[in-house]
Amino acid sequence: MAISKPQRVIVLGSTGSIGRTALEVVRDFSHAFTVVALSTHRNVEILARQAAEFRPEAVCVSHAPSAARFRGVLPGDLETLEGEEGPTRLVEHYDADVLVVATVGFAGLFPTLAGIDRGMRIALANKEVLVVAGEIVMERAHRRGVEIVPIDSEHNAIWQCLAGNDRRAVRRLILTASGGPLRGWPASRLETVTPAEALKHPTWRMGRKITIDCATMMNKGLEVIEACHLFGVAPERVEVVVHPQSTIHSMVEFVDGSILAQMGRTNMYLPILNALTSPERFENKFEPLDLAAVGRLDFARPDDENFPCLGYAYEAIRRGGTMPAALNAANEEAVAAFLGEKIPFTGIAETIRAAMDAHDAVEHPDLETLREADRQARAFARKHAGIAA
Amino acid sequence: MAISKPQRVIVLGSTGSIGRTALEVVRDFSHAFTVVALSTHRNVEILARQAAEFRPEAVCVSHAPSAARFRGVLPGDLETLEGEEGPTRLVEHYDADVLVVATVGFAGLFPTLAGIDRGMRIALANKEVLVVAGEIVMERAHRRGVEIVPIDSEHNAIWQCLAGNDRRAVRRLILTASGGPLRGWPASRLETVTPAEALKHPTWRMGRKITIDCATMMNKGLEVIEACHLFGVAPERVEVVVHPQSTIHSMVEFVDGSILAQMGRTNMYLPILNALTSPERFENKFEPLDLAAVGRLDFARPDDENFPCLGYAYEAIRRGGTMPAALNAANEEAVAAFLGEKIPFTGIAETIRAAMDAHDAVEHPDLETLREADRQARAFARKHAGIAA
Repeated sequence: MAISKPQRVIVLGSTGSIGRTALEVVRDFSHAFTVVALSTHRNVEILARQAAEFRPEAVCVSHAPSAARFRGVLPGDLETLEGEEGPTRLVEHYDADVLVVATVGFAGLFPTLAGIDRGMRIALANKEVLVVAGEIVMERAHRRGVEIVPIDSEHNAIWQCLAGNDRRAVRRLILTASGGPLRGWPASRLETVTPAEALKHPTWRMGRKITIDCATMMNKGLEVIEACHLFGVAPERVEVVVHPQSTIHSMVEFVDGSILAQMGRTNMYLPILNALTSPERFENKFEPLDLAAVGRLDFARPDDENFPCLGYAYEAIRRGGTMPAALNAANEEAVAAFLGEKIPFTGIAETIRAAMDAHDAVEHPDLETLREADRQARAFARKHAGIAA
Repeated sequence: MAISKPQRVIVLGSTGSIGRTALEVVRDFSHAFTVVALSTHRNVEILARQAAEFRPEAVCVSHAPSAARFRGVLPGDLETLEGEEGPTRLVEHYDADVLVVATVGFAGLFPTLAGIDRGMRIALANKEVLVVAGEIVMERAHRRGVEIVPIDSEHNAIWQCLAGNDRRAVRRLILTASGGPLRGWPASRLETVTPAEALKHPTWRMGRKITIDCATMMNKGLEVIEACHLFGVAPERVEVVVHPQSTIHSMVEFVDGSILAQMGRTNMYLPILNALTSPERFENKFEPLDLAAVGRLDFARPDDENFPCLGYAYEAIRRGGTMPAALNAANEEAVAAFLGEKIPFTGIAETIRAAMDAHDAVEHPDLETLREADRQARAFARKHAGIAA
């Protein structure tokens, strides 16, 4: 199985965990992919190594002060963009078939929209793009006929289960949640959870912020919001089931009661490979999953009482407008405050709750309104968490 | 969701468990289906009631002596065929879109071939059709461009998992097996299993013969043979995993390591509905599966030592030719002998082993050669089991 002509790929956020794995895929299937451009926020050293190996036409360092350190490290014929607008300009100026958006935060939205406008397939790992601006992004992608293929293992699983099925036959999307490292802990103990305890994820190895989001169940909440936008379903048709082994990555239930589930190893390489190659499937270096060796899969309902953030996310997407942006912004600040030991673990949910209560949601916001909602919710959350703005 | 024009359906074996459930589907979706013809082997009373309700154009009683009792029960305008050739003549003389083959045994082969020749979609529940004559049947179906949609929950699950995927991307088919009522019993205890013990299936309610086949694992062996033919894969690419809850009905592993699994309630209505309506999906009267309520799914390797029949089936399909026919015939006779308390439970496997050892397999057999292999293996097995021919 081989793609006839190498796909031209831009990887934004190439020095992060997802970006590095995307380049591992490119390295392993070098006949199928050519790297056009790479970007980092500030991880200049890794970007230099990646540029030396993959020989892109251009790179970008979006954190301008870090960019200065980069100058002179690379051959003169490699164009280097600098600053916040860099990723968007990369996408506007270089031709590519696939745009991997592996950046973090609101800033990923602008190059994503540029990629859609240029008709690139979007392999999307940046949660905020859909959580904050899902309506705008999906509307533009539909109009342009662009596919947004999710890299997240849960959404990629749903993507695989939907292939070959009429979307009108979908009854529910069922997202699996590991339940995180604190599943089953008593409420009294959650008050005193340390960042180190909350960072021990049972099944997936990921960055700090997302690992805390798993511990609070907010990660699943953000995924519910993403799923609603990505697959065009109402929030009441997205369910979450706790599945500690994370072997089933997610499921689709159809109107006839049949459920299709996608499973595999808990290794981000695999959904990234799928997002880059779907509907083709590339044989790869990993051993197949051995279910008899796994032995047992468990399922349970989420604990909404001790972990209220999932419910807040449902509330935010039901409320719509700018509310998911406020939820997301308040969560980011609250998680940072917890990791900085400014607030207890339970303070994350309290901060988000307060920020949502204080937020006046605006319907069908434009990008500037979304950005303002983000700014306000952050300021509120920082103040609530006792951090100077 | 609705099929634009009612599908014309013939149900062969309409009075058995699968046939009755197929008619339940037709009753529930009467806008979508019209019954053209029904057949029974000898269950004349049920056939009369079905004919009164579904008003077919013709019926058939393939057991001629039973047919005599049927005369006069039905309105005069209903054509009634009698005898062994009846089902095939029904298919040859009446137009239909879908032929449900819910008969049992070798005899189901001839009307199946007739349905293929007439371009009918075949909804297939009759195992022997593929186990005995899979090569002939699939070759003719391919040539005629006819779809053979499996009703068996395992194969129907695989059918659903394959939709929208390139078959060349399949690495393995993974059939789940409940393991039957005797799973985990010590070898010493298997000697003295009674028919009543072996008939207690943990998850599916089915006929006696197939339930004993579940206890010996031969049912899974026959399904491996069917799967090889139906999906065109070599036996080494079909795996069996024991899954006592039968919630996952079967799976497909692709070359990229991704596994798609189909799950649902253990209720034959659902795969029958799918076989009649695929690729459409009809909403139905059953509650969705609640995985959190199920709680736990287990997986284990089959116990080939205490339950050798699965291995015999792999051996038969690898050997090919008439060997699967001999395996199947010997199994039928051995199961009958066990149910008649002529041989112990462990005698089933011993009888099959002896019959296979005694059988001289013929390559690429025609129908007459298959029938002769069936006859010889039956005679051998009956003699081995100590039953007069």
